[in-house]
Amino acid sequence: MPDRVLSMNLATLRGDCNFATAVDRCLEQDVTAISPWRDQVEAIGLREAARIVQTNKLRVTGLCRGGMFPAGDAEGRNKAHEDNLRAIDEAAVLGAECLVLVVGGLPKNSRDIADARKQVVEGIAAGLPRARAAQVPLAIEPLHPMYAADRACINTLDQALDVCAMLGEGVGVAIDVYHVWWDPNLAAAIARAGKMGCILAHHICDWLVPTNDLLLDRGMMGDGVIDLKGIRAMIEAAGYFGPQECEIFSRDNWWKRPGAEVVKTVVQRFNSVC
Amino acid sequence: MPDRVLSMNLATLRGDCNFATAVDRCLEQDVTAISPWRDQVEAIGLREAARIVQTNKLRVTGLCRGGMFPAGDAEGRNKAHEDNLRAIDEAAVLGAECLVLVVGGLPKNSRDIADARKQVVEGIAAGLPRARAAQVPLAIEPLHPMYAADRACINTLDQALDVCAMLGEGVGVAIDVYHVWWDPNLAAAIARAGKMGCILAHHICDWLVPTNDLLLDRGMMGDGVIDLKGIRAMIEAAGYFGPQECEIFSRDNWWKRPGAEVVKTVVQRFNSVC
Repeated sequence: MPDRVLSMNLATLRGDCNFATAVDRCLEQDVTAISPWRDQVEAIGLREAARIVQTNKLRVTGLCRGGMFPAGDAEGRNKAHEDNLRAIDEAAVLGAECLVLVVGGLPKNSRDIADARKQVVEGIAAGLPRARAAQVPLAIEPLHPMYAADRACINTLDQALDVCAMLGEGVGVAIDVYHVWWDPNLAAAIARAGKMGCILAHHICDWLVPTNDLLLDRGMMGDGVIDLKGIRAMIEAAGYFGPQECEIFSRDNWWKRPGAEVVKTVVQRFNSVC
Repeated sequence: MPDRVLSMNLATLRGDCNFATAVDRCLEQDVTAISPWRDQVEAIGLREAARIVQTNKLRVTGLCRGGMFPAGDAEGRNKAHEDNLRAIDEAAVLGAECLVLVVGGLPKNSRDIADARKQVVEGIAAGLPRARAAQVPLAIEPLHPMYAADRACINTLDQALDVCAMLGEGVGVAIDVYHVWWDPNLAAAIARAGKMGCILAHHICDWLVPTNDLLLDRGMMGDGVIDLKGIRAMIEAAGYFGPQECEIFSRDNWWKRPGAEVVKTVVQRFNSVC
């Protein structure tokens, strides 16, 4: 069994870090795999970000994010398409192992989630030739159903896998425990993802009780109710031994703490409860 | 096709009404079907609540709620069982057409959702003889996955139907649009529920964008993104033409308004967008 690898999703360090200082905080704790967000890359410039990656021989386990496909009109859909092409190119420059897709929810004033889902498939399909050419796999991230309206209308792993099956090579899934832990069909879906060779990423954090904000109240591993080791066992049984990527949005807790403390805690929890 | 019936879940009128005044507000708008919560019944007394129901020839479409089965030890499970027996008896006294079950989430300090789900099945099974004897059908309400940890670990309609299939006569489902609207498998699951003869209730409200609170920010029908008529069509196609029960928890909006205004709005929306 390969060594376990921790990757730091740089959103976890939004509190007091930019791309460069986030990397410094990671390296101080021997974390050499990262997954940045596009706004963090843009803030220091793509070329500088790539230089930091190469100089430090960092592994970029993913770039967050493409997606947001559904729109009310052709202009909106086209804008999304252009933006996704740019995201693919950026991922290629950074040497990212995948581009994570948060696929988007309902267009403004729409109540037609079936149509939004259709637009998502069309949107991914449209970007796929570029992604294949650039050798950037697209990782559909099924998001928790509480985001179905405004962030992602792909809400279960099985639903994401159905899209993968439809679109073929170059599309896979990012399995984030926060989004899927509740799914009564999770074990079977993960096994299916393994058989399809579709698992591109494994994101970790925790579900807090109570959860005080739908978006920005994720917990540090170990502070919530997710059976992290249990889900990891399912993912390993499915043949995936890639990095576990820690992604915590936490406005009122971890984003208020110094990045150094956050990284230390992530490493400690990764080694004890994940 | 039978006339459509609106039922008022009395939680919708928590702002300034007790059981008795809530009924008055409903009757003023010719709403003669209600679904009370047990604390509302307890506050005026079961006998007085039943008297109000009978005097006004009200239809009681459900009693909220039984459930909360999982517990960390036998004592906790037994307490839950005793409480569920009381709930069944109260439902019988009120002539409620079903007892709605919010089945409960993870016991304190547990991360074992599979075990919680097992406890739920055992808990329902334990109460079933009494429910059958009292002719009070038990309505499992699958709750939105965002409540999996703390309120209900049955999170999809299909999962609830699996439990119904296991337990047989006397158990069905309450389909609340708020909890199920996002489900990619919704149409098939509703059809399955119809074939099983399992649909006991159809609850309505709306999903707001943004949603500012996980529990208490439900929207009035028409103010959100749920395709209410579309889901109603699925439910009618499955053979259910029973009441649509309006249940809105809205701490910062509807609970701040006078009950009379809330009932008027519910009736108006029921007639226009549901």
